[in-house]
Formats: sequence, C-alpha cells, structure tokens
Amino acid sequence: MPILDLLMGRPLANWEEHGEQVGPSAGIPIFGLDALSSAAYGPEAALTLLIPLGLLGVQYIIPVVGAIVVLLIIVYFSYCQTIEAYPQGGGSYTVASENLGPHVGLLAAAALMIDYVLTAAVGISAGVGALVSALPKLQPHTLGLCLLILFLLSFVNMRGVRDTGVAFLIPTYLFLGSLLIVILLGIYHVITTGGHPVPVMPVPRLPAATATLTLWLLAKVFASGCTAMTGVEAVSNGVMAFREPVTRNAKRTLTIIIALLIVLLMGIAYMCQAYGIGATNPEGPAYQSVLSQLTIAVAGRGVFYYVTIASILLVLSLSANTAFADFPRLTRAVALNDYLPHLFAIRGRRLLYSAGVYGLVFLTAGLLILFRGVTDRLIPLYAIGAFLAFTLSQSGMVMHWKRKGGPGWQWKILVNGVGATATGLTLLVVLVAKFAAGAWVTALLVPLLIMVMSLVKSHYARVDSQTQDDSPLDMSDVRPPFVIVPLDRWSRITEKGMRFALALSHDVQAVHIDCGEHNEALEATWQRNVIAPVKAAGLPAPELVIVQSPYRVIILPLVDHVLKMEQQYKNRTIAVLVPELVVKHWWENLMHNQRAQLLKLLLLVKGNQSIVVLNIPWYLQE
Amino acid sequence: MPILDLLMGRPLANWEEHGEQVGPSAGIPIFGLDALSSAAYGPEAALTLLIPLGLLGVQYIIPVVGAIVVLLIIVYFSYCQTIEAYPQGGGSYTVASENLGPHVGLLAAAALMIDYVLTAAVGISAGVGALVSALPKLQPHTLGLCLLILFLLSFVNMRGVRDTGVAFLIPTYLFLGSLLIVILLGIYHVITTGGHPVPVMPVPRLPAATATLTLWLLAKVFASGCTAMTGVEAVSNGVMAFREPVTRNAKRTLTIIIALLIVLLMGIAYMCQAYGIGATNPEGPAYQSVLSQLTIAVAGRGVFYYVTIASILLVLSLSANTAFADFPRLTRAVALNDYLPHLFAIRGRRLLYSAGVYGLVFLTAGLLILFRGVTDRLIPLYAIGAFLAFTLSQSGMVMHWKRKGGPGWQWKILVNGVGATATGLTLLVVLVAKFAAGAWVTALLVPLLIMVMSLVKSHYARVDSQTQDDSPLDMSDVRPPFVIVPLDRWSRITEKGMRFALALSHDVQAVHIDCGEHNEALEATWQRNVIAPVKAAGLPAPELVIVQSPYRVIILPLVDHVLKMEQQYKNRTIAVLVPELVVKHWWENLMHNQRAQLLKLLLLVKGNQSIVVLNIPWYLQE
Repeated sequence: MPILDLLMGRPLANWEEHGEQVGPSAGIPIFGLDALSSAAYGPEAALTLLIPLGLLGVQYIIPVVGAIVVLLIIVYFSYCQTIEAYPQGGGSYTVASENLGPHVGLLAAAALMIDYVLTAAVGISAGVGALVSALPKLQPHTLGLCLLILFLLSFVNMRGVRDTGVAFLIPTYLFLGSLLIVILLGIYHVITTGGHPVPVMPVPRLPAATATLTLWLLAKVFASGCTAMTGVEAVSNGVMAFREPVTRNAKRTLTIIIALLIVLLMGIAYMCQAYGIGATNPEGPAYQSVLSQLTIAVAGRGVFYYVTIASILLVLSLSANTAFADFPRLTRAVALNDYLPHLFAIRGRRLLYSAGVYGLVFLTAGLLILFRGVTDRLIPLYAIGAFLAFTLSQSGMVMHWKRKGGPGWQWKILVNGVGATATGLTLLVVLVAKFAAGAWVTALLVPLLIMVMSLVKSHYARVDSQTQDDSPLDMSDVRPPFVIVPLDRWSRITEKGMRFALALSHDVQAVHIDCGEHNEALEATWQRNVIAPVKAAGLPAPELVIVQSPYRVIILPLVDHVLKMEQQYKNRTIAVLVPELVVKHWWENLMHNQRAQLLKLLLLVKGNQSIVVLNIPWYLQE
Repeated sequence: MPILDLLMGRPLANWEEHGEQVGPSAGIPIFGLDALSSAAYGPEAALTLLIPLGLLGVQYIIPVVGAIVVLLIIVYFSYCQTIEAYPQGGGSYTVASENLGPHVGLLAAAALMIDYVLTAAVGISAGVGALVSALPKLQPHTLGLCLLILFLLSFVNMRGVRDTGVAFLIPTYLFLGSLLIVILLGIYHVITTGGHPVPVMPVPRLPAATATLTLWLLAKVFASGCTAMTGVEAVSNGVMAFREPVTRNAKRTLTIIIALLIVLLMGIAYMCQAYGIGATNPEGPAYQSVLSQLTIAVAGRGVFYYVTIASILLVLSLSANTAFADFPRLTRAVALNDYLPHLFAIRGRRLLYSAGVYGLVFLTAGLLILFRGVTDRLIPLYAIGAFLAFTLSQSGMVMHWKRKGGPGWQWKILVNGVGATATGLTLLVVLVAKFAAGAWVTALLVPLLIMVMSLVKSHYARVDSQTQDDSPLDMSDVRPPFVIVPLDRWSRITEKGMRFALALSHDVQAVHIDCGEHNEALEATWQRNVIAPVKAAGLPAPELVIVQSPYRVIILPLVDHVLKMEQQYKNRTIAVLVPELVVKHWWENLMHNQRAQLLKLLLLVKGNQSIVVLNIPWYLQE
C-alpha cells in the first residue's frame, strides 16, 4: 500500500500515541481556529442585521461586541476550571453526563454534534464567502468550492492530529498577523486624522436607514454576534491531545486563544465604527465582506489586501478543522457509552476515530448542499447548539464542585454558576430571536438525535443481556453434530466435503435434490464410491436422501429438509456442509450458479440456534 | 407469492410439460409471426432503396419479390427435410454442430443469436413504425414505445409457451385476414378498372427520379428484400414444442406459414405496382409505411384502415416473439455443450429457459436504445445472421444425408444442396451489398461471440478436469480438524462456538487479537470458564493464543495466524470457527462491525484447500 501510505501517511502504532500529542503552538491552530476565525463572521453577522439602520446601525456595533466580550471572559474562567477538573477531556457531554445524569448528557451530546457540523459548514462557507468577495467571478461556483475545501480538509485530517496542526500553523499565524496589522494601521489612521479617517480607497456606501432600533432588533443582533463565541469549548474537549503537563498546556492555549479573539473582535468593531463600514447584502451581487472593506479602507487594494483576504479565506475554511478535531472525540465518548454504534470508538490507521471523521464529512456536505453554500443562511441554526452545550457544561461543573468540594469550592461554584447563568440567558435570547429564522430546526433535531441515541443504547442493552455470560463452559452433552451434505453429483469437491463430514461425525446424511434427471447413476456411484469405502473403514454408512423437486428449485427444498432434520433431531446441532467453488477472477463466477451463497444466506435467515454452516472451499487452479 | 402467481402464472411442474405442447393453430402465432410479419417490412425495405428511381423504381418490385419467393420455396423444401431428420429440434446450431463439427456449429450459433436479437429489435421497431404512420404525433416517443412493447412481450413470454400462443392467436389471424382483404379488394379494383385503379383517397406522390437502375442498386434492393425471409428457420428449431405427431404437426405448420407468406409478398408487390405506391423516407416527417398507403388507396381511411394498421402494429411487435421462442432454446442447446454459462440450461418456474429470455430482453433493449428505435437503421445488420444460419444448416443437412444415407438420399442431398447454394449466394450478395451500411458490425460480432463462447468452454473444461472424479472416497487419514476459534471477549456467542469446537475435535485453539487493551481479565476468564470445565470433563485443555496488533487491525493478523497454523500443521484440515450475530432487521447491522463477514471473505480469498470456515450463527431475539 505505498500509495495509500504516501497520501494518508503510514499507519501509526499504539505506542506512537505520544508523538501525536501537541503543545500550545500547535494547539492554537488545531483547537483555536474555530474560535479565532469567528472574528471574521461574528461581527459581520451582527452588522448584517443592522443594515436597515444605515450608518446609525454601525454605531451600535461597539456595545454589542462589548457585551459579547464580557460573556467571553466569563466563559473563559469557567472553562479554565473545567480543564483543571477534567484532564482526560471534559467536553460538555462528559461533564453533563457525569454530573447531571445520562439524559442531560445526551442533550449536551446532541447539541454539540449539531454545533460541530454547523461549525464545519459555517467555517467553510464563510471562507468561500471571503474568496468570492475578492474574486466576484467565482460566485456561481460557491457550492462547488465549499465541497472542494471540505474534501481537502477531511483529507488532511485523515493524516492525524499532529500533521494537521503542522499544516495549519502558517495560515493561522498569517491570519492573526494580517488582521492585527489592519487593526493597528487603522488605529494609527484614526489617531493621525483626529478621529476622522478617510478610506485609502472608496468602500461601498451604507444605504439610507429604513428602520429604527428596537429592543427586538438588538436582541437579534446580539444573538447573531454570539456566533463569535462558538469554538471556545474546543480546548476543554480535547485536553487529552496535549502533551505533559497536560492541564497547563491546555489552559495556556485557551488563554492565548481568548485573548487574541477579544483583541480581534474589539478591533474590528472599533474600525467599523471609525470608518463607517457596515455589512452588504450577502446574497446581493455587490456583496463584500466587512473584513474585505476594512482592509481596503485601511490599506487599499494592494498586495497586502490579497494576502489578508487569502489568509482569511484559509483560516475560515480551516476553522472547520476544530470540528474535525472534536466531533470524532465526542462521538467516540458517546459510543463508549453505547449510545452510538461502536464503530465510532475504533481508532483507524492514524490513531484517529475514523468513523467520526466520515460521519462529519457526510453531514457537513449534506448541509452545504442543502443551503447552497451561503453562510448567512446557516447562522440561525448555529448558536443554539453551542450555547446549549456551554450552559449544560457549566451547570454540570456547578454540580461537580458541590459534590466534590475541595479548596475554594464555593468560589469555583460561583465562577461556573455565573458562566452557566450568562450562557443560559444568552441561549434564551438566541432561541427566541432566531426561532423563526431557522433555530427551530435545531430545536427539532436535538430531540430526534436523542431518540436515535436512546434506540442505539437499547439495542446494545438487548444484545448484552442476551449474550453476556460469565458462567463456565457447559461441557454436558458435547457430542458431534448431525452433518448434512448437499450433493449434486459426485466430484472431487463432493469427495472433499464427505471426507470432512466423516472426520467430524458418524452421523452424516447426503441430500440430493432431484429435478427429474439422472438418479440411478447417482445411487450406483454412491454405493460404489461412498458406502463401500466407508464400510471398509469400519464406520457406519452415511445415508443418501433424495428429495423430489417438481418445480426445479434447489435451495428451498434443501433448506426445508434441513429444518425438518432439525425438528427430528431435537437438542442436536445440525451442521450443513456447503462445498463451494472458489474461482480466481470475478467473471468466472458468471459461469457458476451462486447456489452456495444463496444456501448460506437462506440458512442464516431461516435457521436457528441449532443450525450451523460449514463452508468447504474448493480452489480452482489456473 | 399469490401476486407473483397472478402475474406470471403459477409454477409449472415437470410433468406439466405435455400441456405446454402445441399444434399448428397455436404454432403459427408462436413460430410463424416472424416469417409472416416480414411481409410488412421486407417489401418496404426494398422499396425504400428504390425511392431515388421515382415511379420507375416501383416497377422493379415484382421481379425482386419474385426472386425472393423462389428462394423461399427452395428453403422451404430444404427445411422440411431438416424437420424430418431432427424431430428433437434441428436448429442451425444443432445441425451444423453434428454434421460440420463444433467450430462450424459455433459459427451458426453466433449468427443465430445475432439474428434473433435483431428479429426482436426489428419486429418491435417496425411495429412502432406502423403505429407512428397512423398517429404521427407519437413520432417523438418512438424509442419509449419500443421499450414498452419489449417489456410487455417479455412479460407475456415469461408465462410460458402455451399462454403466449393463446395470447397471440387473435392478432395473428386478424393481421392475416386484414391483409388478405386489402389484397383481394385491390385485385378487384384493378380488374374492374381495367388495370388502372384510382386510390380511394390520395396517397403521397412519388418524388421525381434522381438516379437510374444499376446492378449494384438491384443487388442492394434484393439484399434488403431478403429480410422478408428471416424467421423461416424458427419451426425447425422448435420442433420439440409441438405435440404428437411431432414431425407432421411441425411440417404442416411450416407449410401454412410459407404459403401465407408467399401470398402476402406477391400480393403487396402487385398492389404497389398497380397503384404506383413506393416507400417514403423513414426518417422524414411525412413518413408513411407502404402497407398504410396501400390500405388507404384500397379502402380509404375508415374503420377498416385503423383495424388493419392496429393488427399490423400488433403482429410486427409480436413477431419479436419468435425470437423469444427460439433464442432461449438456442442458448440452452449451446449451454448444454458448455459454450455458454450453465444458467442458460436451467428451466425456470414456467418451464422456460428464463436466463435466455432475460438475455434476449437485455440485448434487444440495448440495440433499440443504440439505434433510437428506427427499423431501417437495423436492417443492414439483419439478414447476414439469418442467411449465414440458413447456409450452414443446409450444408449440414447435405453432410447428414451423405453420412446417413437412407431411401432417396441423393434427392435429399440435392434439395438441401440447392438450398445451401441459393442461401449461400444470397448471403454473399447481402454481405457485399450491405457491408458498408452496417453489415460489418455483424461480421465483427460473429467472431467476437465465437471467442467468448470458446473461452466459456475452456473454463468449464478446466473445472471438469480439476473436479471430475469417479474414484471411491479416500478414507485414509480421516481425522478431526485443527479448530481455531477467534475470541474477542467471553460471551454466550463464544461459549456456543467453543462447545461446538470441542464437539468436533480435541485440538482447539482460541485466538485473541490484542489492540492494546484488557488482557489479564481475559486470561483469568479463560482459566476459569474454559480450562477448568474442559479439564474436569477429562479433555485436553484448549490453548489461548494472544496475537499483538499494534496497528489495531483485527482481521488481517487473524488471517495471517490461520495461514501460519496451516503451515505448521501440514496435511491437517484447519477449521476456522466464525461466530456470527444474526439480527432481525437490516439496520441493526449498522450497530455491529461486519468482521465475521470480512473474515469469511478474506479466508476464502487468501485461504487454500486445507482451510475451511465453520459459521456458527447466534440469533438475537426481539
């Protein structure tokens, strides 16, 4: 498999786990991309809703972003405590399950799964949105570009955690560098012009106001802006991916991410207000993202502009990667508790939970196709899952400290309690503000997912109750099976089968299905080639049973005969021997009836605990 | 299966064969439709080539049809002798194989297969052509109608020979009746008008002449007209479908068919000349078939016209039925000689060779789609196969009489010899005249088919040489196998497997693939639950082998271990026991890895004669 190895990387052994662990410098691209890239769409989502207010609307962006930053700081402290308490990975699912019971855990799992799928979809479509702003000619290909990036991302991710971090290092730091330069340059312009900066190149004018601010609109703007907070839980969920000292590395990574995010959010809000830059209609032909306008205003449409836009595109697309890092870990944790197929708990060749990666790609692609790849349509669906998970996680932590105590537990309860309350209230605002716009889909999907997971659990419980066993092997009544050998004509294949049957048991019965052809010859052959040598060897002679089949079907009378024998020999294992010709090339199968396959299948379907199938292959030589 | 029974008829038992046999009245629809319906497209095909000659061209139709009728009479006598000599069915394949050797037989088989597929395709598309003449609005749906009729035909045919004959009785006699009335009415008009009949309603004027007659054109016209002769071999091929006295019934059927065909051909040719009716461009928008024009000229566009056209449509479509009657019999005969997969020799529920029917439908549909359902394009491909089969069959009969002798054998040789020479010469003419127009496809397909059939034969020969056996069962060294039981964890499924393994053999080995998890627990369980009771029962303790799998793959190390054991225990059968969970619903399979399936598959692919698979199902209850 050298090509596979080249593309996907060689398989990793269990003991190479350690080499796959990361520190803060790689941790930021892996777990921080989602949070950091939110800077590119959070403010934009808020500004889009402010379009009807015209230039006045832009003035509201600073207080809105300010509120979000306050919330962010609360959540930050709250998650620092979670990381400390759950060094093995304290995703909302784990925390909620352990502290609030399995049902609440499922609620968190469902919310997070939806959140991650939306993270991937929103990230990619926002990246493509940035690209389309720079090259409007590409707009008709939006969906195609989205799917292409999804494919590339999943490909990189299949190489494992470490390779992914390395691959994303440069775009991440380029993005941070460019945006910080834009912000610093903007502040410099503002200062040098005494607070009235003139754009280097003209930016689209804001349309005239057509509405005034209401509390309802403000709630919707805040709810949209809150998408900037998604991705904050990623670090606490993936703690175990960090190298020793695990807790310190994880907390340091989270601190850097949150600090950078606050700087970006506040910087963008300030620039927008200073330059009077608002959002443009994302579905209109003249769509241009807020960051694109800001960069043009501050630095013109030169090389720097294209570098910045490219890095935004890259990082937005790559922000989907946080979902790739966390979704498989989440589904694995859920699968370990029997709420998802066990497949999700199996590590693939690069130590990844591959089924989770495939699941994520499948769902994200579906979503992108459904929404034709336009970010804005996805945002209403988005924040619900994230804030539900936040709230449950923080509430779980409150219960955790209450149960566990420890030094300063009251303070810890306070921090997590404030976090839970703040995110819970935000959840309510988002739910109400966005319900009609699409949040109802999430509200519908969550119970559906919980139902599916409960069904999976009950299936596994049923399997366990029926197969679990710690009793010793029952050695009573261990005796050879009653062996049935289907016989078409005497051949070396049949001979091999009969030899095997006679090696297993003294009770052997050959069955021939007669469609109205040569019988006497077969019976003579049987006497000569079977009965005689078996008797000579001193064994009891096997029986030849001929079953008439006037309608020329072979398999059904055979299966019926087996079932009849099973009735006759109660408490005895009936072993049906199926001789099978194995050919070298697939097309050779066309030359032979597939009765062996059909017989095996029917015996499995119509059979019962007493019937087993012995498959005796005969290999055809070249 | 009551719905299936209602649609397809109940299954027929072997002893109901006799009830499926037919006499001349049903024999004509079954075996004569192809020949008789040729009257509807043979003359038309000739006239189409005469279009460039204008009105003058129509004058040549009588001599051309006259030549064809002479040929027809020669072939008739020739086939009467074949029927007499081969009462078990003397298709060209059988006659050529037996008298000219298997290679010539294959040539005949290939030619006939192509001929039958073309019969079906030309019949159906000619029928639809007649319908489109009457209702020009349907022209865009030509292909769809063709496929619909093909589907209906195969459906009727799947009910068996007898039901088919009954279903086709009325349309056949309606067709014969209508055409005979048209001809008689026409002759009456010609006589009453003193040789200058006036059409009841106007018919399309013939275009002005744009070419003059050449020998080359005449050859092409003759070659096209010869399609009227296809289907003549059908009776001799299907002799065994007739009831006793078989030979007399078959000959009587052939005689009636040929006599009727001659009347129809001559009648149509005479009418065309008398009324000055020629063909119209079959791909033009004003296409109208010759028979449609003739009927309008003689009887106007009244009820009789529509009845006639409907019966032509029906009979042309049904003419494809001759292919359905004979193609499966041909492929069966070929399959019995190992030149086609044996599937073609198996009789289905209605005593038909179902695989042949499916094969014919598949190929015909392909051809119709390829040629967009227009008859004329198919005709160049057509006559080659039929005339090649004629020639080989007649030549074979010459050899037959030479070898066999009997009273009057010289006369018989003469009859078949004249037949062979006449059809052979016609074959040459058709081949040369139609080569560029598409006959080269047939000339290419024939060797291709022969090659495929030879490959099939050599495959079966290889299988036979490797499996054929008439030696008695070798009872030396018959001893229980070495049994390998893959073990994941101790469960009731494993327990059942171990019990079965110990019932078969005292050499049992359990294999656990360790991906780096719980081992001590398993080994303790093994000691407690297996070793202890087995020793207590006085049997040798089975071994537990633990195979490390650092790359977390399960199946491959297991298969490798089995192969290693096979190397170690030379000359011993290695039985791999595969316990398998059987669930009630397909979706439950998503919950379980399909390792059992994969293991069985890999053992089959990588295994050898010493390795057998024992499949122990465990049924999950509701």
